[in-house]
Amino acid sequence: MITTEQAAVLAEPLYGHLGTIRPDNTVQVNPMWFSFDGETLRFTHTRSRAKFRNLQSNPAMSLEIIDPENPFNYTEVRGELAEVIPDPDGDFYVELGRRYGNPGQLPPPDSAERVILVMRITKVISG
Amino acid sequence: MITTEQAAVLAEPLYGHLGTIRPDNTVQVNPMWFSFDGETLRFTHTRSRAKFRNLQSNPAMSLEIIDPENPFNYTEVRGELAEVIPDPDGDFYVELGRRYGNPGQLPPPDSAERVILVMRITKVISG
Repeated sequence: MITTEQAAVLAEPLYGHLGTIRPDNTVQVNPMWFSFDGETLRFTHTRSRAKFRNLQSNPAMSLEIIDPENPFNYTEVRGELAEVIPDPDGDFYVELGRRYGNPGQLPPPDSAERVILVMRITKVISG
Repeated sequence: MITTEQAAVLAEPLYGHLGTIRPDNTVQVNPMWFSFDGETLRFTHTRSRAKFRNLQSNPAMSLEIIDPENPFNYTEVRGELAEVIPDPDGDFYVELGRRYGNPGQLPPPDSAERVILVMRITKVISG
């Protein structure tokens, strides 16, 4: 389902643009750090934010990533929330911070309510 | 509703990430050129693509833009499709191509079905 080229894009520490659907059936898009383990996409998030509430009412997620060297090349990963894993020490936040270029990343102040959003991938589109 | 700083972001030729909702209530995010006239956002599109069909069933739109110098700064513009204006000669496509750095931009091969999507802005969020 995922080509070698698409997997290479997901391996880069690029910002993703995550779409979710709000309870009133309008759409929300936010920049997100992510990591790809070969099967799922993982995001750090908190239980108190709008995106988390959005995903409780509609689990649909779509992450779009553009190639900064050529914005006409983009990858869109569609799927849905599969699992929410508590991350009360912010370990996954630290892992992502390091992935995105900050070797000294500390856990965030809101670690206590941090969670890992695990996204099951249903389709990957390259445009 | 839009601050001077937000208007300055929208004046830059940055890629936007447009979220729309598909008829099956899943979400789609695509990179888009846009222009801001002080009141509405405008996009070039075609009548045959998925995003156009999405907007016929749900007019909700959300455009997210990150500051390439500091990806933690982002702007999200929420609104809905207000108007679809035919652009059969691709003039608006050419205008956007020039805005995004190609002074010799030609009309696209699919000009006959080109349209301008006019987005009414309901809320602007800076994060």
